[in-house]
Amino acid sequence: MSNNPDLVTLEAIRAAAQRIAPYVGETPIVALAPTGISLKAESLHPIGAFKIRGAFNAILSLGEDERRLGVVAHSSGNHAQGVAFAARALGIPSVIVMPTNVSPVKLAATKALGAEVHLVPAAERASKFESLARERGLIPIPPYDSLAIMAGTGTIGLEILKQRPDVKFVLAPVSGGGLLGGISAAIAQAAPGVQVIGVEPALANDAAMSFREGHIVSLSAEETARTIADGLRVQQLGKFPFANIRAFVQDIVTVTEDEIKAAMKRIAAEARLVAEPSGAVALAGALKLGLDPGTSVAVLSGGNVEPGFYASILAA
Amino acid sequence: MSNNPDLVTLEAIRAAAQRIAPYVGETPIVALAPTGISLKAESLHPIGAFKIRGAFNAILSLGEDERRLGVVAHSSGNHAQGVAFAARALGIPSVIVMPTNVSPVKLAATKALGAEVHLVPAAERASKFESLARERGLIPIPPYDSLAIMAGTGTIGLEILKQRPDVKFVLAPVSGGGLLGGISAAIAQAAPGVQVIGVEPALANDAAMSFREGHIVSLSAEETARTIADGLRVQQLGKFPFANIRAFVQDIVTVTEDEIKAAMKRIAAEARLVAEPSGAVALAGALKLGLDPGTSVAVLSGGNVEPGFYASILAA
Repeated sequence: MSNNPDLVTLEAIRAAAQRIAPYVGETPIVALAPTGISLKAESLHPIGAFKIRGAFNAILSLGEDERRLGVVAHSSGNHAQGVAFAARALGIPSVIVMPTNVSPVKLAATKALGAEVHLVPAAERASKFESLARERGLIPIPPYDSLAIMAGTGTIGLEILKQRPDVKFVLAPVSGGGLLGGISAAIAQAAPGVQVIGVEPALANDAAMSFREGHIVSLSAEETARTIADGLRVQQLGKFPFANIRAFVQDIVTVTEDEIKAAMKRIAAEARLVAEPSGAVALAGALKLGLDPGTSVAVLSGGNVEPGFYASILAA
Repeated sequence: MSNNPDLVTLEAIRAAAQRIAPYVGETPIVALAPTGISLKAESLHPIGAFKIRGAFNAILSLGEDERRLGVVAHSSGNHAQGVAFAARALGIPSVIVMPTNVSPVKLAATKALGAEVHLVPAAERASKFESLARERGLIPIPPYDSLAIMAGTGTIGLEILKQRPDVKFVLAPVSGGGLLGGISAAIAQAAPGVQVIGVEPALANDAAMSFREGHIVSLSAEETARTIADGLRVQQLGKFPFANIRAFVQDIVTVTEDEIKAAMKRIAAEARLVAEPSGAVALAGALKLGLDPGTSVAVLSGGNVEPGFYASILAA
């Protein structure tokens, strides 16, 4: 296993855990009441999502000289806040490229974290990102297709094993694959008896297809935009995540939009946590599979959801 | 101080912490993002409220012989679930008297915890409770007017001091006073420099009046029913809580219904936690007082709120 350079090693994940520990608090596990599936509440990080783990690990893995130059990322969502938060905590500049149609809430949150934000039309994001990196010497922090990012997300897997030594099933949402790749690498290597299962909206099922077909399958932006799970609209898995998912994940299952909404409602009512649609997908998968609540942990990846939209789902 | 038998001693609270530790998990502190006041998330207990702390301590303080007889409580809310949960965990029977107009959600939750529920008209609750205790030899577990209950709630204060050694202000909601009395007893005796402030809806301000006038003031049930904070409608402070509040609390402030709703919305959007109205009252007080976010902790006492009502507040 460790001979494949695309795979995240357990050593890298353990090193990431040590590296980020001064900055990233352990998140609690909260069970659906009274006897339901457990949730790993990554929504309780200060930015409301797991993204700070990868961001801190990637930035802290840079040399001091490199790091001082500052970092650049492009994101319309939680990755932007993860990078901005970590950069601010480490006292370095961050530049974030966002699409002009970004949600005002996320734009404001990223600015509040001290990032220099560049708004550009969605089609120009990648070129703007590259020119900023090149012209200003900023270090690019990728959202998922990176071993350093996955070593960071893998720390979630180590925490779950420590918090629930009797766990048998771990479920995580999958989009670009950085979260699922890192968690599965951690768990498959540290606790080979535990099954890791990816969960994806049926309306953005590229990872499930890729897993089954053995090569990376893409969907169009129009197709993935159909799901309410706005954090899971990446059109295809990253190369490094796919390698880890193939090596370490048991299966990838899909859930319907109604199943995602029902899971959001149960998380509010039974665990008193706010889940964004993407954050409820793993629980939706666990419920659909009928897994044993006592030994299953679903990763609640984030809780950043526009209040009016959230209210409309709870009220339905 | 320790000569007044109505006051909860630090020794009693420390003993309670040891007694309940095998059954009650430490709750996390979650800050409003990016730099807001911290919340002690008592909503993340399996019953969604702080009430299991007092219930476990009261039941575990009984002798083995007494305990085996079973316990009885009357409650329309979180206390019922606290007692039922603790009784089930300790393998003893619980009997809960509830009013016929109890919310179906709370009735179902209490039954799901294995309690024998007796539904009676609200006016007959106390007599039913007493006759059950007398005729079946069940041990009554009071909701707040008890030193054992307050020693249990006081463990929240010890946890806050351990989790945030630099805390300067702790705010808690007040109704019967068991929560505020216990927390203030813990903090005033373990960390005399920290101020403990009670917060109450202006529409149910009996504790604020009692604190100012130096004797227990009551409101009518019609008056306290005006607030949306259904957990804070007790008409007057208990005798033991009042003694502790007078001895250990700095002040009691009131908040409006709009301030409570605004705090619920901020807790959902900035801490990704579901707060019932009573659970948002302490934060509303901290915001109203303009306390320093870095050194203030508000107790989020519970997250049990009917989904449709919660959605209507988030959407407003």
